[in-house]
Amino acid sequence: MIILFGVFIRYNEESDAHWIEHRKAKNISSDIENDFYFRYPSFQDVHVMIFVGFGFLMTFLKRYSFGAVGFNFLIAAFGLQWALLMQGWFHSLDYTDGKIKIGIENLINADFCVAGCLIAYGAVLGKVSPVQLLVLTLFGITLFAVEEYIILNLIHARDAGGSMVIHTFGGYYGLAISWMLYRPNLDQSSRLQGSVYHSDVFAMIGTLFLWMFWPSFNSAITDHGDGQHRAAINTYLALASTVLTTMAVSSLFQKHGKLDMVHIQNSTLAGGVAVGTAAEFMLMPYGSLIVGFCCGIVSTLGYIYLTPFMEKHLKIQDTCGIHNLHAMPGVIGGIVGAITAAAATESVYGPEGLINTFDFVGDFKDMVPTQQGGHQAAGICVAICFGVGGGIIVGCILRLPIWGDPADDNCFDDEPYWEVFN
Amino acid sequence: MIILFGVFIRYNEESDAHWIEHRKAKNISSDIENDFYFRYPSFQDVHVMIFVGFGFLMTFLKRYSFGAVGFNFLIAAFGLQWALLMQGWFHSLDYTDGKIKIGIENLINADFCVAGCLIAYGAVLGKVSPVQLLVLTLFGITLFAVEEYIILNLIHARDAGGSMVIHTFGGYYGLAISWMLYRPNLDQSSRLQGSVYHSDVFAMIGTLFLWMFWPSFNSAITDHGDGQHRAAINTYLALASTVLTTMAVSSLFQKHGKLDMVHIQNSTLAGGVAVGTAAEFMLMPYGSLIVGFCCGIVSTLGYIYLTPFMEKHLKIQDTCGIHNLHAMPGVIGGIVGAITAAAATESVYGPEGLINTFDFVGDFKDMVPTQQGGHQAAGICVAICFGVGGGIIVGCILRLPIWGDPADDNCFDDEPYWEVFN
Amino acid sequence: MIILFGVFIRYNEESDAHWIEHRKAKNISSDIENDFYFRYPSFQDVHVMIFVGFGFLMTFLKRYSFGAVGFNFLIAAFGLQWALLMQGWFHSLDYTDGKIKIGIENLINADFCVAGCLIAYGAVLGKVSPVQLLVLTLFGITLFAVEEYIILNLIHARDAGGSMVIHTFGGYYGLAISWMLYRPNLDQSSRLQGSVYHSDVFAMIGTLFLWMFWPSFNSAITDHGDGQHRAAINTYLALASTVLTTMAVSSLFQKHGKLDMVHIQNSTLAGGVAVGTAAEFMLMPYGSLIVGFCCGIVSTLGYIYLTPFMEKHLKIQDTCGIHNLHAMPGVIGGIVGAITAAAATESVYGPEGLINTFDFVGDFKDMVPTQQGGHQAAGICVAICFGVGGGIIVGCILRLPIWGDPADDNCFDDEPYWEVFN
Repeated sequence: MIILFGVFIRYNEESDAHWIEHRKAKNISSDIENDFYFRYPSFQDVHVMIFVGFGFLMTFLKRYSFGAVGFNFLIAAFGLQWALLMQGWFHSLDYTDGKIKIGIENLINADFCVAGCLIAYGAVLGKVSPVQLLVLTLFGITLFAVEEYIILNLIHARDAGGSMVIHTFGGYYGLAISWMLYRPNLDQSSRLQGSVYHSDVFAMIGTLFLWMFWPSFNSAITDHGDGQHRAAINTYLALASTVLTTMAVSSLFQKHGKLDMVHIQNSTLAGGVAVGTAAEFMLMPYGSLIVGFCCGIVSTLGYIYLTPFMEKHLKIQDTCGIHNLHAMPGVIGGIVGAITAAAATESVYGPEGLINTFDFVGDFKDMVPTQQGGHQAAGICVAICFGVGGGIIVGCILRLPIWGDPADDNCFDDEPYWEVFN
Repeated sequence: MIILFGVFIRYNEESDAHWIEHRKAKNISSDIENDFYFRYPSFQDVHVMIFVGFGFLMTFLKRYSFGAVGFNFLIAAFGLQWALLMQGWFHSLDYTDGKIKIGIENLINADFCVAGCLIAYGAVLGKVSPVQLLVLTLFGITLFAVEEYIILNLIHARDAGGSMVIHTFGGYYGLAISWMLYRPNLDQSSRLQGSVYHSDVFAMIGTLFLWMFWPSFNSAITDHGDGQHRAAINTYLALASTVLTTMAVSSLFQKHGKLDMVHIQNSTLAGGVAVGTAAEFMLMPYGSLIVGFCCGIVSTLGYIYLTPFMEKHLKIQDTCGIHNLHAMPGVIGGIVGAITAAAATESVYGPEGLINTFDFVGDFKDMVPTQQGGHQAAGICVAICFGVGGGIIVGCILRLPIWGDPADDNCFDDEPYWEVFN
Repeated sequence: MIILFGVFIRYNEESDAHWIEHRKAKNISSDIENDFYFRYPSFQDVHVMIFVGFGFLMTFLKRYSFGAVGFNFLIAAFGLQWALLMQGWFHSLDYTDGKIKIGIENLINADFCVAGCLIAYGAVLGKVSPVQLLVLTLFGITLFAVEEYIILNLIHARDAGGSMVIHTFGGYYGLAISWMLYRPNLDQSSRLQGSVYHSDVFAMIGTLFLWMFWPSFNSAITDHGDGQHRAAINTYLALASTVLTTMAVSSLFQKHGKLDMVHIQNSTLAGGVAVGTAAEFMLMPYGSLIVGFCCGIVSTLGYIYLTPFMEKHLKIQDTCGIHNLHAMPGVIGGIVGAITAAAATESVYGPEGLINTFDFVGDFKDMVPTQQGGHQAAGICVAICFGVGGGIIVGCILRLPIWGDPADDNCFDDEPYWEVFN
């Protein structure tokens, strides 16, 4: 890794000490115009989501908190280095000297890339070894970079918050791996496959930090100015709406009208996933609420009916229910994005705003919104194909008996991999 | 809610795709001038205070952590949607087309509005049903919006951090409701009305995030430039000072000189409440320390003497002690604000600074600081009246036997509303 | 404290109400040029590191969580007030009127100053009384301010992230105090000197917030523009690299290849410490990875071999292992800084970039990079001397039998200082 970084990675012009000369040459009036000040606060929020959000969300199991937060830490720290290289080759390669030039936006993208693998981790939580996780991440990041390049650059779909690129891909990637690693005797660990009171409270730390900072996630790499502003507002509204629907559905479908912490911890986040693609478009505040409303229902019902069905009939054991939180809402998000893009008009966006928002420049300067809608739809298909296909291949590799995975009666237990004194 | 948003709510010009044309028309040199970059970091800090801060602060009870953090989540997510509408009608209505135009400042204000209701939740924590909480929030937000309009717009009081508008109102609103819902046999639940070791540590997460981000709370909607800068400094200093006084008083008034976690969790925050109104004024660093010093004493002594007294003699059962943390410091904050405003001089503020800070423009361009002091004092009275009056009315509504509130021996227990497996 | 603040401390021109006039006089085009907007997001991240990061990192002991997070809160709140005064006299004194003018950068520096004392607290955690901690902090802050003035102003060493000024000083200060307060019979408390499952999860909250926000720590007071940008990137990379090495070494050197939470909680942070000085230099991305790689090894091996050795043979009882997390990586960071500075060339930095980065202006305008390297090395020595010397003196004072320290069989227990009900 050090050698690869040594050969390929350099600072970009905004993080290089030549910035002061570059600034004067380009007649930029102030240091505050450095991209750092546009994106650093959002970057830090995304960073918190990756490490605290995903990490603590998975601590709900009674004896797998070390593994949840510790392996999440390991995967993320490994993945972001590999992602800087892989994404760099596709997106930030400077052809004049063959170097990848990195700045704050690359760090955000590396965190995004890692998110795809952490989603996949959610499906196999407690059933794999750390070495398997590193393999899952190595291939996951690589597939992600290729898929992202195809969707964003070749197809020219827009996907600010990664509904397709991150959540759909990550969700199906994890589910396919989990299907390949199906354990028929997993009920031998059923004593450990539940929560205790305080582990559920720890998981709420993860939920809340994901929920609160999701507006930063969806706005982190959108256009400066109105793009970031609008993406944050749309995400904020969609998430607020999802919380209400989730609580209502959870209470309605449980006996005695009681709420279930699993739904509160997970389904409340589905709105943020589903508004990812369309967040930067003129979705309108009520549009965001509708998206959030629908996703709260779909996601909660998924936990109640679909997850048990998938485990019983499809042989997919999905520990964290990522199908309900990431895969389905991700696809919904892709569809919402396609519709919103296809429906875009100059009267709503303004002539310059339209070009600016959809990036109709260069090779794509003759595109119109309806075309863009089609490209968005194509993006969804690519994401699903890469997720399922990649997952099956990587799942095959992970079935090799060389990775030290835990026995069926040792799943969901920190004991095999951690020094636990009590 | 979706229909109301569909009819009324639109993006404002800084979050609309027309921004790029608007920017050029107004000759704004850079995207960084978008209000998003002035306020988004503060917004996210406020957001954390609302969801993690208030939520975890209330997890101290041994078996009500799900309710604390979960219902806090529910109220806040519901309240902020309603607040966008209510505050929008009063503050952001565009009379040319009858639409509410929202941007980042509206999101911050919605979070502020929600804070008032969460404070009230603190007084009735563990004694009401989620449906009662939604009713409390619905009316609370509505009252808040009216009260805020009267205090800020009609009376023209300044209240950056909401000592009056948020804390005084929210505090007395909750206390009045708690008084109306007095339970003489609450001691049947006394086995649950305490903390366990780890629930106190969870509560410290809430305390610390509130404490750390309070400078953002008080500076979030103040004037660009020096206003935000000064509000952050004043709040930082007041809070630091309160911590020391709280620790000292807690140790002095307990037997054996031991510290009490209840005081550390709550009273350490009183300085932030009390400096809310005056934070944007030229309070001077030593003034902030004095405010923090006094509030630490008042608040801690309130927990030791006043809360038991109120429960025994005034029939007010205040679960979290919001009288000591919000109501009293809020009133102190209002008074400090009135005095600081009345004492303002051109030599301290500069001629333009004075106009800028107190917004002596338009209808109010002939006002002088002493007058402003009077208006500030009037603001305190309005806040108290709305809090007490509104609380009594809403308390009456909540006494109707249709809301499914828990029995006296079921209070402070997650069992009635949550699936708890162990 | 109030009196001292009253006499000495005032707002600086960016936080004073005269800002609006100052801005026009200086022809500053926009409020966004106020230093507040350059530094406030980083300040809040640093603030979280101090109060949540350090506080929760120390909650790993089974019955000392109140003391860890509560006394951390006390020390920090006290220390930052004292630091504003002490650092103000050395750095921000306005000689025209004898006042200290404070702004956001002073708040960050005060938090930095406090960090030095919190590091020292880690060495004596559980073995001292709150009064002893206040004394430790009072002298620690004072020594820090003098040491910082010598290193940064007199020697003209650069130390953006404080590898020398904060970590080396704080580490050796704490170790020297711990040596002076050696308790031969500490094994009487050995039943309490360990973790329970959930206390280790709480500690991970501290670890992760420190880890995530370290890029803000190292970039908070660097130069506007490329300086902050580059410092964040370097720190991010060094930390990612440390996580991998720590996990690998922890697994390799434990029996059965199990991971130890102590290493994950602490050693993963060593890279951030070690890149502190050089973060703002052109260290290059691969350089950051190398630094993180080495520190992960050194720090983890330190926990496995050095800490037991120091306790047994050198009579230094280091509760949190600050020698491995702060002292050693701090020295490494100083050395890396010296080498990087000495190796700086105009071709890498650009002519203006070189002057800008190393601040070769005023009295130091004739300095060259190799000289700067020597000055950096001198800075390390000063930091170690102040740490060890100051620690021995303060340790002598703390040995006086008047401070109410806990008995040998009462260490690591909240009971003596807190109301604990269960």
